[in-house]
Amino acid sequence: MTTETEPAPTSSVSGATLPEIPPTVADLKTSQKTGASYRHTFPVHTKLTPSPLSKEAPPESYRGFVNLGMLLLFGNNVRLIIENYQKYGILISFPGSNVSRDDWVWTSLSHTLLPLNVLWAFQIERWAKKSAVGYRKRLDDAKASINGAGALHDDPKSALKNVHKIEAAARTTQKLFGWLHVFNVLLILTWPSYVSYYMIFHPFMSVTCLMNGTIQLLKMTSFALVNQDLRAAYIFDLPPDKFQHLTRVHDASSGRILTTTQEVYQYDVQYPDNITFKNVAYFWFAPTLCYQPSYPMTTVFRKSFFLKRTLEMLTCLGMMYFLIEQYATPTLQNSVRAVDQLAFGTMLERILKLSTTSVLIWLLMFYTFFHACFNAQAELLFFGDRCFYLAWWNAGSVGRYWALWNRPVYTFFKRHVYLPMVTSGVSRLTAMLVIFTISAIMHEVLIGLPTHMLYGYAFGGMFFQIPLIALTRPLEKWRGTGTGLGNMIFWVSFTILGQPACALLYYYHWTKRHMDDPVPAS
Amino acid sequence: MTTETEPAPTSSVSGATLPEIPPTVADLKTSQKTGASYRHTFPVHTKLTPSPLSKEAPPESYRGFVNLGMLLLFGNNVRLIIENYQKYGILISFPGSNVSRDDWVWTSLSHTLLPLNVLWAFQIERWAKKSAVGYRKRLDDAKASINGAGALHDDPKSALKNVHKIEAAARTTQKLFGWLHVFNVLLILTWPSYVSYYMIFHPFMSVTCLMNGTIQLLKMTSFALVNQDLRAAYIFDLPPDKFQHLTRVHDASSGRILTTTQEVYQYDVQYPDNITFKNVAYFWFAPTLCYQPSYPMTTVFRKSFFLKRTLEMLTCLGMMYFLIEQYATPTLQNSVRAVDQLAFGTMLERILKLSTTSVLIWLLMFYTFFHACFNAQAELLFFGDRCFYLAWWNAGSVGRYWALWNRPVYTFFKRHVYLPMVTSGVSRLTAMLVIFTISAIMHEVLIGLPTHMLYGYAFGGMFFQIPLIALTRPLEKWRGTGTGLGNMIFWVSFTILGQPACALLYYYHWTKRHMDDPVPAS
Repeated sequence: MTTETEPAPTSSVSGATLPEIPPTVADLKTSQKTGASYRHTFPVHTKLTPSPLSKEAPPESYRGFVNLGMLLLFGNNVRLIIENYQKYGILISFPGSNVSRDDWVWTSLSHTLLPLNVLWAFQIERWAKKSAVGYRKRLDDAKASINGAGALHDDPKSALKNVHKIEAAARTTQKLFGWLHVFNVLLILTWPSYVSYYMIFHPFMSVTCLMNGTIQLLKMTSFALVNQDLRAAYIFDLPPDKFQHLTRVHDASSGRILTTTQEVYQYDVQYPDNITFKNVAYFWFAPTLCYQPSYPMTTVFRKSFFLKRTLEMLTCLGMMYFLIEQYATPTLQNSVRAVDQLAFGTMLERILKLSTTSVLIWLLMFYTFFHACFNAQAELLFFGDRCFYLAWWNAGSVGRYWALWNRPVYTFFKRHVYLPMVTSGVSRLTAMLVIFTISAIMHEVLIGLPTHMLYGYAFGGMFFQIPLIALTRPLEKWRGTGTGLGNMIFWVSFTILGQPACALLYYYHWTKRHMDDPVPAS
Repeated sequence: MTTETEPAPTSSVSGATLPEIPPTVADLKTSQKTGASYRHTFPVHTKLTPSPLSKEAPPESYRGFVNLGMLLLFGNNVRLIIENYQKYGILISFPGSNVSRDDWVWTSLSHTLLPLNVLWAFQIERWAKKSAVGYRKRLDDAKASINGAGALHDDPKSALKNVHKIEAAARTTQKLFGWLHVFNVLLILTWPSYVSYYMIFHPFMSVTCLMNGTIQLLKMTSFALVNQDLRAAYIFDLPPDKFQHLTRVHDASSGRILTTTQEVYQYDVQYPDNITFKNVAYFWFAPTLCYQPSYPMTTVFRKSFFLKRTLEMLTCLGMMYFLIEQYATPTLQNSVRAVDQLAFGTMLERILKLSTTSVLIWLLMFYTFFHACFNAQAELLFFGDRCFYLAWWNAGSVGRYWALWNRPVYTFFKRHVYLPMVTSGVSRLTAMLVIFTISAIMHEVLIGLPTHMLYGYAFGGMFFQIPLIALTRPLEKWRGTGTGLGNMIFWVSFTILGQPACALLYYYHWTKRHMDDPVPAS
């Protein structure tokens, strides 16, 4: 094992990373000229030095191991590909070729019908705007009449009564529009759900419908809630301290606190000017679930950036498809028998075999959508806030992971569910449980319906996060955020065991349901 | 896929990692007291932010991926263990139980005979010391007589002649002792080599003999060379500018240049006081290959540190043994047929299957010896300079790797081969090639002899490093040290393909030689 060669001159002993072994070659060359010849005696062990891996040593970079890890991931998958090529040959078919014509029809139908809900929501807002403008005018007149200016009523008392009456009426109409939105929002998912469960066979097809549906559902909810508040502020002409004071943003550049939307949004749009088709359409396509009258915008469209992201997206999608078709599937097929025989050893082995694949697919999925796709989208729309995710891979606890990996959804729930509940006196825990329930239902819908298996696995999977969070939170408190141990627990529970296990579970039931004989285990 | 839950309170929006989404819960609580109710309107998209993975974003830590990589390494090996347990059951036997009695005898013999060479080298030095002291005295007298003080000769001319005569004689004796050392050093490896090649069957047994032999060979070479120079300096009473000036060490603490061994070594021993049994014995066991009359020493023995390292060493050794016996071997066995049929697809698949295992074994090997073992040894001996390796895992080029991973050998060759050659006018390239040749021969000896296969694979493997270095050096110059690409090339060429390939190559020939029928491929 012991061997060595001379490193590149760049890594001469005088190099930064290497301890100085005098003399340097240069020294010796000169010393030769001075007539002194080289001696073997020069000291190489000259000072007390700890080993790089010792605690006493200065912190060392382990970037090299990241590369190794990634390479092994890659190598392992290459190996599996070779192995299962030798077993199965080429399994991959043209994308979608195994999707029936009906599936195509129903899927495209459900996608094309979704915009109706958006338009409908917009229509509601337009009516609401109209009425709001009306009420504002009437209220202004009524208030004016109280102060006697341009008095229509001689009796201020009745004038005040009149004001109250108008306000009451405004509130009721407000409620009305609220309910209209509720119906609309509820409607959004019913249609895709029905189609996915009863009409479409291929899960991937229905997933697209339901994903699209869920996104619109959340978007329209935010759209409705925000506009409701803006409208209220407009009609009743709320003073900043009752309304705007909540929009407190610390502006790093100026270092001061911005207290009005005017200040906060670079390009501010005041209600009711924001109720335009252009505005709602922008929100509809923008990579966010939180409606704002306006967003921080970029000024230039970077063509190269856009093209790169698009290219990445396509490549990653291709790789994902290949990984799934060509050897996630066969591995799953081989596992069916193991599950049948409840051979836990083999099941674990299968899950671990799947894990490398599924991790890779997961990372690809994340990169494709949360980095490549959203950034391309944002670049097109000059959407400024690209914080679609944070460094979830360093998460020191499961809870932290859920807070970091999917910012759009996190922000939505924080803004429209968690904070409203907590501020209206509900305990943090309850708020958290409610959000869990919602997200658990969403999972069940997004996985259960397409697979035609409403067994509550996905629902349970989400709720299983609670003990995990309870487990890893103290750890994080104890070891500080981004603790290695907590991070490991996250990776194992979520990526290495959790995902493959779920995949296996669903695949098993799917096979039992739709296949006559599973491929013989190898 | 889109889901989320409320993170632990620790990761509240006011947390460092998350962008500030105002208002914080606290704000809202107070704002309630002030009578203002929560609004859905507060802005969540407030500033231009790039995605963490974008170039524009501040550098992000990827430590989480290190953990993932390590976990996958681990998971993969667990999987392979399960898989091959189901195939083979328990293969592992008590360490050494499959080693013949003869092997044990010969191995222990060769180990017990090695110390003789050390003692012999010491004996040579003792004689050399005696003569040196004698010559020094005669020279002093002779020189004195030139100056006429205590003149034995009336004629200064003849006195000067006398001095020259003595010096000439001293030089010849010097040469004599030099040759004695050469013979001794050459002898060191002959015995283990003979035993390994002709007597011992089990490769692991002979490897220990040859490893021990090689270490002693290098140690004694350094011992001889250094003492020769010290002796010369002593006899001819060289002035510092002709001798000590080479020991230039920059002392970080005082910031000045130390110019004499006296200054450099904390506990200095001057020739001939260093020619004691205690001194040579210390060098014999010290974790270094470079002899110095004295070394920087630690002052305290940290018992816990020593015990930890020892425990680590034993654990890692156990794990290595397990990995090798229980499933590196079967994988190799299955490969034999692939090699027979020259089925390159399968061969690559096998190599990749081996790679995870072999990487793990390699890392364990490195940690066991270069961190655990050497540190324990050093702690016992109060040996201060623990720089047995540097962060080779980040190496940006193959050459750099060879310079970083094995410091004792690197330092030895730098001190006793490279610098002497370069300073005496040989070109860097030649010096490098010479070192390559030496180390290639060492490899052939350390692998070829134990496996009884002197096919020159190991020799070739070492020389194959030259093109690799030539390939990666420009890369490092271009991308800076520790470039990711260079690092990847290093990992692939060395750890992921190189090592498993060599293992397979040797195992194949070994099987062909010693096995009647290889285990059927699975």
